[in-house]
Amino acid sequence: MTDHSLTPPSFEDLEAAAGRIAGHVRRTPVLRDETLDELAGCRLLFKCEHLQRVGAFKYRGATNAVLSLGDAEASRGVVTQSSGNHGAAIALACRQRGISATVVMPRSAPASKRDNVLRYGARIVDCDTDQAARDAVTVEVLRDTGGTLIHPFNDARIIAGQGTATREFLLQLAEANQQIDTVMAPVSGGGLLSGTALAAKSMQPGIRVIGAEPAQAADAYESFRRGERTTNVPIDTICDGLRATIGPLPFALLQQHCDDILLASEAQIIEAMRLVWTHLKQTVEPSSAVPLAVVLANPDAFADRDIGIILSGGNVDLAQLPWQTANTHQDR
Amino acid sequence: MTDHSLTPPSFEDLEAAAGRIAGHVRRTPVLRDETLDELAGCRLLFKCEHLQRVGAFKYRGATNAVLSLGDAEASRGVVTQSSGNHGAAIALACRQRGISATVVMPRSAPASKRDNVLRYGARIVDCDTDQAARDAVTVEVLRDTGGTLIHPFNDARIIAGQGTATREFLLQLAEANQQIDTVMAPVSGGGLLSGTALAAKSMQPGIRVIGAEPAQAADAYESFRRGERTTNVPIDTICDGLRATIGPLPFALLQQHCDDILLASEAQIIEAMRLVWTHLKQTVEPSSAVPLAVVLANPDAFADRDIGIILSGGNVDLAQLPWQTANTHQDR
Repeated sequence: MTDHSLTPPSFEDLEAAAGRIAGHVRRTPVLRDETLDELAGCRLLFKCEHLQRVGAFKYRGATNAVLSLGDAEASRGVVTQSSGNHGAAIALACRQRGISATVVMPRSAPASKRDNVLRYGARIVDCDTDQAARDAVTVEVLRDTGGTLIHPFNDARIIAGQGTATREFLLQLAEANQQIDTVMAPVSGGGLLSGTALAAKSMQPGIRVIGAEPAQAADAYESFRRGERTTNVPIDTICDGLRATIGPLPFALLQQHCDDILLASEAQIIEAMRLVWTHLKQTVEPSSAVPLAVVLANPDAFADRDIGIILSGGNVDLAQLPWQTANTHQDR
Repeated sequence: MTDHSLTPPSFEDLEAAAGRIAGHVRRTPVLRDETLDELAGCRLLFKCEHLQRVGAFKYRGATNAVLSLGDAEASRGVVTQSSGNHGAAIALACRQRGISATVVMPRSAPASKRDNVLRYGARIVDCDTDQAARDAVTVEVLRDTGGTLIHPFNDARIIAGQGTATREFLLQLAEANQQIDTVMAPVSGGGLLSGTALAAKSMQPGIRVIGAEPAQAADAYESFRRGERTTNVPIDTICDGLRATIGPLPFALLQQHCDDILLASEAQIIEAMRLVWTHLKQTVEPSSAVPLAVVLANPDAFADRDIGIILSGGNVDLAQLPWQTANTHQDR
């Protein structure tokens, strides 16, 4: 039996994933806005994976992994751990295949993300936020159910699936006679960024691949700079989708294919999120805004470039928007 | 000299408008969401004109009208009156042609809409909210500047331009082998709805065209039912884009091509807006949510139908969202 946490996917695996999930996932649109371009001093093209089913790119990897299971394995159900979007994605992918799903989920996850998991018929098992607690509960659930673990990022099937977003993005740009010289994605566990890097460097070797990470969750940044996986980094960010630490398998791919990882502060992320809502008219979650925040924080590194950004997710509590909190004490 | 307020446009005028504005306007995407379909009990396809330049369909009509001006006329500049989106649209269309624009604007218009007008380099002249005050100030500005009036809705060039959104929508659906049996748009002055009706009935004669109007601004509804234009109807709606009264020229087209006008309450509009933000992930303004509110309020009239909805605009003050106000006094 293959251990999907040990061998990184090839570009052929990524293309096979694209074929496997076609007809299950949405072909999401690419948007741009001239006012954002003026503000950023470069040309920005946004791949709208927050408009993917379940509101996040996660549905690509989850669908690829669930459709990769053999029938006997599938019949015992799937177990995963997730702060939200991967959980919802596994829930829907399992419902589509007619098998059961259990999601180990930190009690701190936003209500909108819990609602999504439940909407698609999965069972939630609560846990504490730290990775050790998540892992302990996951092991317990696996033992009790006999199900198969589909890890949210440290899994070749997941990485290959997430990478199909960038493959589709580059194909859409080619169809429209457009080109980017840089592609950016947020990084947390690293499934999206490593899949993005694999797809981008395979299809357009000269492209620059930049990860974007909250400064208050800088484990991938530290790992990338030190050349070794570093997990003892404090995590305290508004980006509820970016609180996992970089996985060993994604990290190996990032060392090979990623050009840099850059940081943005919480205030820069909130401002970038507000700009995406205002000018692109898209209700993205904070995690999605980190690449734009990095661009705005490092104007020299991006001036006059053609930049592709993966908007990763759009599941957000509308009653708890960060600028409401920020505005509370202002005279308006 | 043609009086554009007297003769309604033909479908040939609408097709000429589409040719004139191609390359200036965006081809906006069509979005759908399975969860919204389940909630509504029908299939909903949304034409995203809030993603048009300036964040509203208004840019289509404004561009068509401004590009229709002769050079001598254009050189004296354009004057218009607008609660916001048409003003921004005229401002940008004039900037693109290199001519001046003056927008007569009620002091009550939202900050986001005033900002848009100023961003595109137009001059704002303040007025009171009622139509008589708007008209008086407009006459004054026309006299002072010698400019040309481009009325926001009672103008054949504007109606033809707004109708290009529905023409594009139906062409996009045909390309994707999809079909709708009903098309819906919000109604205020009537430029969008009359253009929508003209395009839809010309291209697909069996289609049903339904206008959607706030119950607290029901002048088009009353006019349609009585068979004569009725303007003495109280206007008090959250939909800042729908506070004008139906114009004579649009009304003539609606009597000919529109099948019905239905109403939604303020609470229904706010709930529909929240659903579009949550599930479609689009930051639309309240006006855009009125058609979905009408669908949800009249399930029998829409059950199992294939419905196209024009999302009309996305310019909204993020610090002043209606569910924030609604939530203020709740224990959370």
